[in-house]
Amino acid sequence: MPKDLKPWRVAASRDLLDASPFLKVRVESIELPDGRRIDDYYQIEMPSFACIFAETEDGRVITYRQYRHGPRRLSLVFPGGHLDAGEDPLAAAKRELLEETGYEGAAWQDLGAYMVNSNQGGPVSHMFRATGCRKVAEPHADDLEESEVLFLTRAELMAAAGRGEFALLTQIALFAMVTNADLARSFASGNAE
Amino acid sequence: MPKDLKPWRVAASRDLLDASPFLKVRVESIELPDGRRIDDYYQIEMPSFACIFAETEDGRVITYRQYRHGPRRLSLVFPGGHLDAGEDPLAAAKRELLEETGYEGAAWQDLGAYMVNSNQGGPVSHMFRATGCRKVAEPHADDLEESEVLFLTRAELMAAAGRGEFALLTQIALFAMVTNADLARSFASGNAE
Repeated sequence: MPKDLKPWRVAASRDLLDASPFLKVRVESIELPDGRRIDDYYQIEMPSFACIFAETEDGRVITYRQYRHGPRRLSLVFPGGHLDAGEDPLAAAKRELLEETGYEGAAWQDLGAYMVNSNQGGPVSHMFRATGCRKVAEPHADDLEESEVLFLTRAELMAAAGRGEFALLTQIALFAMVTNADLARSFASGNAE
Repeated sequence: MPKDLKPWRVAASRDLLDASPFLKVRVESIELPDGRRIDDYYQIEMPSFACIFAETEDGRVITYRQYRHGPRRLSLVFPGGHLDAGEDPLAAAKRELLEETGYEGAAWQDLGAYMVNSNQGGPVSHMFRATGCRKVAEPHADDLEESEVLFLTRAELMAAAGRGEFALLTQIALFAMVTNADLARSFASGNAE
């Protein structure tokens, strides 16, 4: 018998910082289901993004090595980017893959959408796998980051993961999900229902 | 030949919001390696945490179902919590598991540390697997969230993942990593080096 778990009620909300489109911060007064009240529950807004595990026709995975300022070190990174306002996540994933790499996927699998910060909200990470990718255009990258572009095998990525070359939660999550055969199957059946 | 990827230089930093210990926000002026300058690169600070995939002696995984305010819906969640100031991540993981569940692990595997927000920083998610867990005390939970405690098999968790019952990036990442046999092996050999 599942326990009856109720959502929290937002009794009041006050904007604290507006650095749109990058970041907004507000503080909420929360009423918990048991009657307790929390008057300083901070919430952040940041743009959601799509992240793509893109496998070429010959089984290579399009990967970058980049300096990222969050962890202040190099990380392996898969293609991806922010959703435009109101944009469908799969459409954003296809657009970002094409813009960044010039590649187009033959088949796409949706691996779900996940809130990056469990309590404070912020961006949602939309995870996709694209297979049968082939080059159809020149890339138009406008990222701030310099990139080394790599076409790695899954085995090379697996070894790099064990050496700690993934510094970013979204990237290790996507890699672990796609290369987890049971999980990929579970998502495929979930999507088909 | 790897490309020479340089870190960014922080030319200036200004505090914008101090809601310690929950959240701090600052804006940095950044100098990119190619000479460009970005004067509004926002950085957040939030407490880092440990997250534990804890398997009992009979192969059940200690799991909660909770309402979480980030995604504003129910999610499956594994035990975990914030690191105290200066606390070693593994020590924090053992402490949180014991406090929250009353269980102690016989063996621990470190699955790495990952920055939650790739560009803005914030918390680091420290991932662990504990096996052979057995109950040695009563739990002392002080979470705001009401929880339904579940002892699920890996197969039950796998089916739940496919149905979208994980709403949180940290949780699906940990689950995907631990149940990915190749990845677990890669980390074991990485740790042993």
